[in-house]
Amino acid sequence: MASGWFYLSCLLLGSLGSMCILFTIYWMQYWRGGFAWNGSIYMFNWHPVLMVAGMVVFYGGASLVYRLPQSWVGPKLPWKLLHAALHLMAFILTVVGLVAVFTFHNHGKIANLYSLHSWLGITAVFLFACQWCLGFAVFLLPWASMWLRSLLKPIHVFFGAAILSLSIASVISGINEKLFFSLKNTTRPYNSLPSEAVFANSTGMLVVAFGLLVLYILLASSWKRPAPGILTDRQPLLHDGE
Amino acid sequence: MASGWFYLSCLLLGSLGSMCILFTIYWMQYWRGGFAWNGSIYMFNWHPVLMVAGMVVFYGGASLVYRLPQSWVGPKLPWKLLHAALHLMAFILTVVGLVAVFTFHNHGKIANLYSLHSWLGITAVFLFACQWCLGFAVFLLPWASMWLRSLLKPIHVFFGAAILSLSIASVISGINEKLFFSLKNTTRPYNSLPSEAVFANSTGMLVVAFGLLVLYILLASSWKRPAPGILTDRQPLLHDGE
Repeated sequence: MASGWFYLSCLLLGSLGSMCILFTIYWMQYWRGGFAWNGSIYMFNWHPVLMVAGMVVFYGGASLVYRLPQSWVGPKLPWKLLHAALHLMAFILTVVGLVAVFTFHNHGKIANLYSLHSWLGITAVFLFACQWCLGFAVFLLPWASMWLRSLLKPIHVFFGAAILSLSIASVISGINEKLFFSLKNTTRPYNSLPSEAVFANSTGMLVVAFGLLVLYILLASSWKRPAPGILTDRQPLLHDGE
Repeated sequence: MASGWFYLSCLLLGSLGSMCILFTIYWMQYWRGGFAWNGSIYMFNWHPVLMVAGMVVFYGGASLVYRLPQSWVGPKLPWKLLHAALHLMAFILTVVGLVAVFTFHNHGKIANLYSLHSWLGITAVFLFACQWCLGFAVFLLPWASMWLRSLLKPIHVFFGAAILSLSIASVISGINEKLFFSLKNTTRPYNSLPSEAVFANSTGMLVVAFGLLVLYILLASSWKRPAPGILTDRQPLLHDGE
């Protein structure tokens, strides 16, 4: 029964995640002129798409690997590798998304990293990089002691959820900022709620719904790896002999 | 030892929370001309102060009542009343904060509820109202069955944390939006990072730090009410006979 609800939640999560990415692509393609990789505003358009895909959707999905009941039995190593690999994909999308906005700014002589959106976003990406490296060093490589692993695991889990929360706040402030930029000096400004504004606001609300569903699945105690699994957390990379 | 760390975290939380409110007041007083209650922009200035105080600082503090070790022994009812009363204070501050912005908008013929900031913020306030009423009806009034209470408790805890996350995202997008509004057409626009921008961005980062610390204290398992307390969760308002 709990498992049925879990898969239903995953189905909803997959639908919401796909909609977040597709809605952002559609917004950029239909109202903002589409995509290019040449330092123009069309290069900037990759930024929202890649940040939503990387820091929210892929990141959220990658976080939930250990909630799959299949991961609770048998060796844990393949699931650790999947968790790390999916997060690495999320991080690569994120970095390409940052390259898009920095290149656009530098090309157009626009200042970098002045808005609160950018301060929070770059903090989230920095914490993500630290989290990935520390996770790799402590939980995948075989050097860390059991004591260190059990000390760092709750911190790793907490920062996993915290970074997602920061990413969602960054995405919301980013969409809000982009709409104020794009919809000024037009016949239908942001405050008249043109169709683009309704669509992009809805995309932001979808991102929030996706993020909350990830956090719910992550924190719901009945969907966590059962206690005996704790033993296998201490299994290092080079000793996968369960 | 765990208790020592808990009180140290509470001290840090109190300092961060006070700084969030004081920094927002200082921003509005020093750079935005101070406060009034007359439909002008000075009336708007109450909005950020009251939303940070209500939806973040008071709300965050009120959430943590059951983490105080004192609440783990003896009757639970006084702590339930404190939890509900502090949240009610947070809600009143929030409503006054909303009155400030709606009155300012209506007075100046500015549209309400068009930005993503406002969509998310009003969603957070609506969920907060639902959460308070449902919590009052189910956990304080004596009518609800034990089954209903134990079913709703994890949902109440999850939405408690979720509403705080939405509030933080709303505050971040609100500060970002306000800086773009206030610092356009000035000799030192937002993108040149004048002192106001650095100060207000830092205030936003403080709000994020405060929110993450609340979530950490809320979720850290060693600071949760120990298991025997579960029995007293089922104690209704009119049967406080422990």
